[in-house]
Amino acid sequence: RPAPVRQGQRDTGSLAERFRKTRALSLALAQPLSDADATIQSMEDASPAKWHLAHTSWFFETFLLRDRLSGYRLHDKRFPFLFNSYYEAEGQRIARFSRGLLSRPTLEEVIAFRHAVDEAMEALLGREDCAELIALGIAHEQQHQELLLTDIKHALFQNPLGPAMFASLPATAHKPGEGWSEHEGGICRIGTDFDDPGFSFDCEGPRHKVLVEPFRIANALVTNGEWDAFIADGGYETPSLWLSDGWAWVQREGIRAPLYWNEDEHFTLAGWQGRDPDAPVTHISCYEADAYAAWAGQRLPTEAEWEVSARSHDPAGGQQLDRAEAVQPAATDAMFGSGWQWTGSAYLPYPGFKAPEGAVGEYNGKFMSGQRVLKGASCATVRAHSRASYRNFFYPHQRWQFTGLRLAADA
Amino acid sequence: RPAPVRQGQRDTGSLAERFRKTRALSLALAQPLSDADATIQSMEDASPAKWHLAHTSWFFETFLLRDRLSGYRLHDKRFPFLFNSYYEAEGQRIARFSRGLLSRPTLEEVIAFRHAVDEAMEALLGREDCAELIALGIAHEQQHQELLLTDIKHALFQNPLGPAMFASLPATAHKPGEGWSEHEGGICRIGTDFDDPGFSFDCEGPRHKVLVEPFRIANALVTNGEWDAFIADGGYETPSLWLSDGWAWVQREGIRAPLYWNEDEHFTLAGWQGRDPDAPVTHISCYEADAYAAWAGQRLPTEAEWEVSARSHDPAGGQQLDRAEAVQPAATDAMFGSGWQWTGSAYLPYPGFKAPEGAVGEYNGKFMSGQRVLKGASCATVRAHSRASYRNFFYPHQRWQFTGLRLAADA
Amino acid sequence: RPAPVRQGQRDTGSLAERFRKTRALSLALAQPLSDADATIQSMEDASPAKWHLAHTSWFFETFLLRDRLSGYRLHDKRFPFLFNSYYEAEGQRIARFSRGLLSRPTLEEVIAFRHAVDEAMEALLGREDCAELIALGIAHEQQHQELLLTDIKHALFQNPLGPAMFASLPATAHKPGEGWSEHEGGICRIGTDFDDPGFSFDCEGPRHKVLVEPFRIANALVTNGEWDAFIADGGYETPSLWLSDGWAWVQREGIRAPLYWNEDEHFTLAGWQGRDPDAPVTHISCYEADAYAAWAGQRLPTEAEWEVSARSHDPAGGQQLDRAEAVQPAATDAMFGSGWQWTGSAYLPYPGFKAPEGAVGEYNGKFMSGQRVLKGASCATVRAHSRASYRNFFYPHQRWQFTGLRLAADA
Amino acid sequence: RPAPVRQGQRDTGSLAERFRKTRALSLALAQPLSDADATIQSMEDASPAKWHLAHTSWFFETFLLRDRLSGYRLHDKRFPFLFNSYYEAEGQRIARFSRGLLSRPTLEEVIAFRHAVDEAMEALLGREDCAELIALGIAHEQQHQELLLTDIKHALFQNPLGPAMFASLPATAHKPGEGWSEHEGGICRIGTDFDDPGFSFDCEGPRHKVLVEPFRIANALVTNGEWDAFIADGGYETPSLWLSDGWAWVQREGIRAPLYWNEDEHFTLAGWQGRDPDAPVTHISCYEADAYAAWAGQRLPTEAEWEVSARSHDPAGGQQLDRAEAVQPAATDAMFGSGWQWTGSAYLPYPGFKAPEGAVGEYNGKFMSGQRVLKGASCATVRAHSRASYRNFFYPHQRWQFTGLRLAADA
Ligand SMILES: [Fe+3]
Ligand SMILES: [Fe+3]
Ligand SMILES: [Fe+3]
Ligand SMILES: [Fe+3]
Repeated sequence: RPAPVRQGQRDTGSLAERFRKTRALSLALAQPLSDADATIQSMEDASPAKWHLAHTSWFFETFLLRDRLSGYRLHDKRFPFLFNSYYEAEGQRIARFSRGLLSRPTLEEVIAFRHAVDEAMEALLGREDCAELIALGIAHEQQHQELLLTDIKHALFQNPLGPAMFASLPATAHKPGEGWSEHEGGICRIGTDFDDPGFSFDCEGPRHKVLVEPFRIANALVTNGEWDAFIADGGYETPSLWLSDGWAWVQREGIRAPLYWNEDEHFTLAGWQGRDPDAPVTHISCYEADAYAAWAGQRLPTEAEWEVSARSHDPAGGQQLDRAEAVQPAATDAMFGSGWQWTGSAYLPYPGFKAPEGAVGEYNGKFMSGQRVLKGASCATVRAHSRASYRNFFYPHQRWQFTGLRLAADA
Repeated sequence: RPAPVRQGQRDTGSLAERFRKTRALSLALAQPLSDADATIQSMEDASPAKWHLAHTSWFFETFLLRDRLSGYRLHDKRFPFLFNSYYEAEGQRIARFSRGLLSRPTLEEVIAFRHAVDEAMEALLGREDCAELIALGIAHEQQHQELLLTDIKHALFQNPLGPAMFASLPATAHKPGEGWSEHEGGICRIGTDFDDPGFSFDCEGPRHKVLVEPFRIANALVTNGEWDAFIADGGYETPSLWLSDGWAWVQREGIRAPLYWNEDEHFTLAGWQGRDPDAPVTHISCYEADAYAAWAGQRLPTEAEWEVSARSHDPAGGQQLDRAEAVQPAATDAMFGSGWQWTGSAYLPYPGFKAPEGAVGEYNGKFMSGQRVLKGASCATVRAHSRASYRNFFYPHQRWQFTGLRLAADA
Repeated sequence: RPAPVRQGQRDTGSLAERFRKTRALSLALAQPLSDADATIQSMEDASPAKWHLAHTSWFFETFLLRDRLSGYRLHDKRFPFLFNSYYEAEGQRIARFSRGLLSRPTLEEVIAFRHAVDEAMEALLGREDCAELIALGIAHEQQHQELLLTDIKHALFQNPLGPAMFASLPATAHKPGEGWSEHEGGICRIGTDFDDPGFSFDCEGPRHKVLVEPFRIANALVTNGEWDAFIADGGYETPSLWLSDGWAWVQREGIRAPLYWNEDEHFTLAGWQGRDPDAPVTHISCYEADAYAAWAGQRLPTEAEWEVSARSHDPAGGQQLDRAEAVQPAATDAMFGSGWQWTGSAYLPYPGFKAPEGAVGEYNGKFMSGQRVLKGASCATVRAHSRASYRNFFYPHQRWQFTGLRLAADA
Repeated sequence: RPAPVRQGQRDTGSLAERFRKTRALSLALAQPLSDADATIQSMEDASPAKWHLAHTSWFFETFLLRDRLSGYRLHDKRFPFLFNSYYEAEGQRIARFSRGLLSRPTLEEVIAFRHAVDEAMEALLGREDCAELIALGIAHEQQHQELLLTDIKHALFQNPLGPAMFASLPATAHKPGEGWSEHEGGICRIGTDFDDPGFSFDCEGPRHKVLVEPFRIANALVTNGEWDAFIADGGYETPSLWLSDGWAWVQREGIRAPLYWNEDEHFTLAGWQGRDPDAPVTHISCYEADAYAAWAGQRLPTEAEWEVSARSHDPAGGQQLDRAEAVQPAATDAMFGSGWQWTGSAYLPYPGFKAPEGAVGEYNGKFMSGQRVLKGASCATVRAHSRASYRNFFYPHQRWQFTGLRLAADA
């Protein structure tokens, strides 16, 4: 049944190469930013660009250099307090919403910290006993690369001048999908097999059986143009379409459109731009996705439905992050890329899930409450980072990521 | 496999008898309350007793008398604004947290409203075309009977005088459970079969297959005495035991024990009383339940695990609400009763779920976001109201219901 | 210059008679209220009627019976915690906004508490050494009588049924004032002379000299009809008329009219009623009063200007509280009564002010920050309570009292 | 009676010279700051350094260049929206607490804006009809110079690294004052005479007579060492010392010491430094000042008392801002300088006060509500900016300015 997988730009280098490439991309992403740009924080959910640069280095310094490299001395012993994110086991840390007050260390000093960490890491890149943690650190940094882009987008959006991080949008030539794919259901296996080579997060497994009823799933993401029709039909004023929490959110926040929309434009990493009606709608909350699906007479796919559908698709296909540019969703018939896809599934542990011991065990498990799973990848996701078992998660009201939706229905 | 079900006090009367019995029990529950007691509201989550009495009558008046009884005129045309709870389709309504300011209508006037509704309902009790909605109205009122008790408990608890709603606790002679039951798993069916006779809510079905891995589940609820050990071992001060949202809640609210605990006592419907170490702990949030399970090296059962385990138990067994008295959890080896049991499952739609058309369709479906399923029944649940497919749901931080936990583990 | 003072219904009885009369009036005011009416609290600024009845009794029990009557035993040793208002020296007390949850003690029990205090007080009513404190207790209770009326008005206003505390408004036959009175200014004496017989609060003195420039002051309060013109002229939409804090308040709270106004009606102690255009506007904040004065090209009088103007007026004249009825401002040319009058003066200590020792010293002095002085009296002020030196005070945004304004200008 | 005034470094240059000097000092103050330092905003009360630089230029551009220089074109037509502070008449403006997100325009661009304004202003510096507004613009910028220093101090304080804006504290050699000065009171004149040459704000006049009772006033400000004694004596735990609003503030905010204190150090513009016990305490709120005075058995001086006392002192004396350095209060017997002095007087209009027409009329008058007057000057006040009639004002809880106290008492 599965169509042959088209081969994307899978990351095939050595661990050391992937480490260096990842570290370099972070710097490239921050390159258009001034120290001030890299310092500001627009909301508690977001972090300054400088903080992302430093925090990802803190991760390598703490769990690799400090714990595994004998004789290593911290670059600056005050940095762990500043750049620990949420690891309780790693001690006290700065209040989340105070990150935006850190004009010091400067961007230059943070880059120096990065270089120092990179240099020290060279001694560990070939060590077998460090490989798993280094792979985790790379994956961690890739996640923060996406956050860096979405966070700075949100911060620049607050500025009435509408500053553009990049001069222009990249040219795109993707083709829209259409129609539905049918799936016959049955007992399927989802989740990662931890015996397989290749990195995955703890929460992606263990691989396990699920019972899936027959269903169909759309070949395309919902588009800006379709969303215009939802708005025109009074979608945001019709309580019967909404989850109760969602309707309360719409009323409380005065929501009338996706984040970043204003009349015929939307805010991008290249400033204010016209909207492409064929491009996937993104920057919608799960509440909006759910209301749209209700309006369309369909529903969101479950995580399992999405994952079994994705088995026949190339995780490295579609529009994903390859270089530092003003990524922006484009029309697509790929399963991955352009926008993350809200599912109908809560982010909860898979049967048999066990978080690892120690601070690294705080990576995923403790967030398994109140959040929804998103699948796929977005235009801001590093291409090599995607896989079918990947479980992204956010609270249902959050929408500053490139989040969209793909419809599903019972067969 | 299933052991023969012990038969509890299942409700076997006619619909009319069950209607009258239910309506009478609500009045009996409110009987110890003064007009002032029945007026106060201690938090947004809770409602005044008077409001529960009126709102349950509004339900019958609106969906039965107004919609189905020709020539019926509203008892008071201003009441729908006051006593609609959350039905958007039924129009505007008073702000939720203003319910506690309604000194008028008086308790006496509300009771007169009840009598008027009861009298008018007699004409419909035998009508075939109304039976389904009447059964829904009864189930709805039974739910509010439990809320009436838990809400007034919370309100009286605010009073430094510690007033007792009832003079004393009822005598209890339940025996504690112990040990574990093993389950071999497999493909199981859960949820209600809508073709079966007997009432169930829309969210309890459709009946569907699930894949369950082998597991074991405790024969007893976690007790007050065991919770004392959790506290003594620093449970509330150990972040590694907690979900991230839970730990934030503990810190923000200064949580150090279950709700209503103070030294060796806890607040009950009969005022401040000593705690029975063998009785199930209740008034814990899902965050607390999850932390306890982590501390105990176990986990919460999933909804499916709980339900397949319950198939061999009498839903009308255990300690449940039979009459107006100071219900309070007692030691139990029953699957149902004493305290609701937090599960590891999110409250989400079953495969194929469709909410009914119209206002009644707002009953359950729109709340399927951010909440957790609880199974079983509590000492405040009308005995006839319980069944294995029942899906109670609350946000993970809520704990003013009689909420406890039963441990589970992979087999 | 001063016109001969018209004599009002000055209170001329003995201290014992005044005590009994005051205590009786409180009960009469509460007489139309049910236990539930007397229990509810609509905002933190207000208190339940039952609480006023109990707190005024607590004052006599604490500072007279407990401290001065040998062998007295507290009526209920748990009551001080419930009914202390803000006396830090008297120990812990219930959180202010939890007063509205006290369904117990019942109204009946509170009345029994009152009777017990009254009976015990008989032994002290003739004691010379208690006279000063008893007079303070009477004045204190008179203040709470006004608050009882304004607080219950606010609470009943929250009820969509618009319940009337009294069946109808009392007939009024007051005549409107017009024109201005000129004052030549000079060195004047204001404040109370503590050597004079007759009660006054500590904050009203010492009597002292002030320098007053020539000014004129309106003979009438601003009326509802004049306020309509202010609204029609865009008063609430013109930032240049407003103090900065006032404009922020208007925007934040969506203020568009005085409190209790709705179209052509306003809420009164007799429910919703049409507005008399000739009656003084009340229920306005100091911000509104100030904006109106700016719009009218005038200003608020200072406290000193008001007080020297009032010297020639009868403090017992005008419309004030004589009996339990639905008091409501009526057209007036009196200096006192109908509505309290915002001044341009901050509530700060007079030169030489010293608060008394002990708990009673917390009565006034500690509130001398951030509040404005109001002069005169309202329709809800006990007639015998008024005097020219009286300093009422509220925060500039508060408006649930009968607060209005009288214009002034430089001569 | 008045002792001959010692002559300080009064500003005696021409208007054009004073303009250029003021503009240069702002740049000098910002010189140690990076773009990121100049971008951050630590609370709603404070503004970014970059914003101060731009806003003061906006003032000249708007009220001088735009309104008075024919043919002038705005430097950037988007800047008024960004850099208007609170002038309603000048239209919409960015939300106050979003100022800290303006990474663009860059510090360099803001400085370019300053240079452009300065250049254009040259054409107006000699024009008679502009002199008054230019003087206002200079005074305005001097006020913002003080705010720039106190705001960046507050922002850097948030940084756990405790960054120093300047490398070290300047050397100081001030001598402490001691004892009291007696004043016989009488009819005095205070406020500015608008017919006098020399700049003053509208709120400082008109000059008018006040009646002052005999009093005495301390020759020194309260010191850090004296404040240590207040703390040691339980000052922050004794409710009877505090205004009611102040005590609520202490409880709510957990206040236990002046702002910036930590053990034996305090945070300065040169980072964390030891405290000089002889230096005046600063960074205290009016609530703290009032509580200290109550503890010391004294009181705060009134504005009139302070001003008549100051007549015999040199406003350009004491420790004030002369150059860009880490200003910090030092021991002083001067009336002016080191720290602003809280008074017992509310910030209200003087008799006959009229705000000017137009946007400039919003400068002072609209803030006359809820604030207290402070007199004198601080170490961060431009020396030429001080005068006896000056009325500084803040809300009683604010303390991020260099605010201290001088005791007074009835004679
Ligand atoms: Fe991270
Ligand atoms: Fe309901
Ligand atoms: Fe009182
Ligand atoms: Fe300004």
